[in-house]
This record gives sequence, C-alpha cells and structure tokens, in this order.
Amino acid sequence: MTIELTDIDHVGIAASDLEVSVAEYSRLLGVEPTHRERVDDQGVEEVLFAVGSSFIQLLGALEPDTPVGRFLTARGPGVHHVAYRVDDIERALAHLRAEGAQLIDEAPRAGSRNTLIAFVHPRTMGGVLVELVQER
Amino acid sequence: MTIELTDIDHVGIAASDLEVSVAEYSRLLGVEPTHRERVDDQGVEEVLFAVGSSFIQLLGALEPDTPVGRFLTARGPGVHHVAYRVDDIERALAHLRAEGAQLIDEAPRAGSRNTLIAFVHPRTMGGVLVELVQER
Repeated sequence: MTIELTDIDHVGIAASDLEVSVAEYSRLLGVEPTHRERVDDQGVEEVLFAVGSSFIQLLGALEPDTPVGRFLTARGPGVHHVAYRVDDIERALAHLRAEGAQLIDEAPRAGSRNTLIAFVHPRTMGGVLVELVQER
Repeated sequence: MTIELTDIDHVGIAASDLEVSVAEYSRLLGVEPTHRERVDDQGVEEVLFAVGSSFIQLLGALEPDTPVGRFLTARGPGVHHVAYRVDDIERALAHLRAEGAQLIDEAPRAGSRNTLIAFVHPRTMGGVLVELVQER
C-alpha cells in the first residue's frame, strides 16, 4: 500500500495583504485568478491561479488568531503548506497512520472547491505542512 | 506578454539530513526516488520523487556556507523554493524584468537534469523564492 500522490494540487502561500498579493501575481503571471473562496472554518480567504494541472493558492487570514494569521506573525509571508492530490484520501490516511505519521486531521473534512482534505503535521514530512486533497 | 508558467516543476525542500529525509519520503510515499544529482555550483545534492508531472525535490547542503546550508541554519528544514516550468525562460525573464521583478539570475544558467534555470527574489512573489525551469 502506498500513499499514491497523483499530483501537486497546490502550493499554499500566506499573504500579509491578500489583495496586494493577488494584484502582484495577476500582473507577474499575466493571468487572472481562476477561483476565490472564503473558508470560515479555516479562517482564510483563498485565491487560486491555475498553473498546468496545479494551483498557486494565495491565502489571506480572516483574523490574526487563525493558523495562517499566526504563521504570518511568526514567519512572515511565504509558503504555508504543500498540498498533494490523491484519489482516495481515506486510503492515504490509513497508509500514513500505519507508517507512524502524525496526522492533524484523523479523518477527511470538507475543503474548498468541494474537496475532501486532511492535514499532516510538518514533523512527518521534513518540516513541511502537508495537505492531502481528494476531488469529489 | 505573460510569464506563461506551464506547470509546477518542483517544490524544493531543504533537509537537515538528506539521507534520513530520502528514507522517510520513500517509506511514506511508498516509492523510490527517480533522480539524484550533486550540483556543485549550487552547493547541494538533490533527490527527486515524481508526483504526477511534478517533483518533490529534497535538498541537502554540501557545506554549511551555501544557500541551502544558511537557510537550514536560519529557518530549519522545510520548503526552500517553488519552481515553475516554462517553455521559454528568456521570454519569462524579459517579462519579469519589464514588470519590475527583482531577478537573482539576470540570465538563465545550467540546472540539474540538463535544464536551464533562473531564480527570482522572494520579495517579488510574496515571500517565495521562485525558480524558473526550462527543459532542454
């Protein structure tokens, strides 16, 4: 059994000022965002730019006392997490659990874009906060 | 004119102990690396795991006084840079220059896997060290 990552779903980038970053990325990439969504239970607003089969995800914190808000205070703007796409998130989590991974989400939960997601603790994958994403 | 990113080429992850991280990723992903290369002029050894059309790139510093070595001292293990694939790196650099981007490499240089690469300063793209990669 393996985790079977099928693609990099997105790179999540914490932005101090989401609208400034969206304008910068739009100008530099020469394209408009493909998606925008407020995810209240994660305390973020996200804006996606398509890059091939993946996305650049810019993240603005809705409040300072949220995961992305605390990340910005501690480390400043930059890569917050890396998300990998899987076909079967339950199976991926079972594999990671069997391998002794430290899961932030023991079970999948609803993500943006009507996906199922689960986060894995940075200490499991070399200091990288990892998100698994299954499309529905 | 746009920068025309065609894909995420790789996410570069700085590892305190490259062999430990390679073993961890191999076990968790259930796959073996697809490539290993020592890049002396960048002061790194890199190990690649294929994920769809992209790669996870684990980076070990050859010496402490190298870009990845200094990153590890300052921030610890984690995401070091994000690399985007382009069809025409000269054109992409010209576009970025015209938009006022701060380029680390004014001209493309040889990267691993016989690619052409150029780095863009983190302050240009929201705190993210960005690499452009053109396959040859």
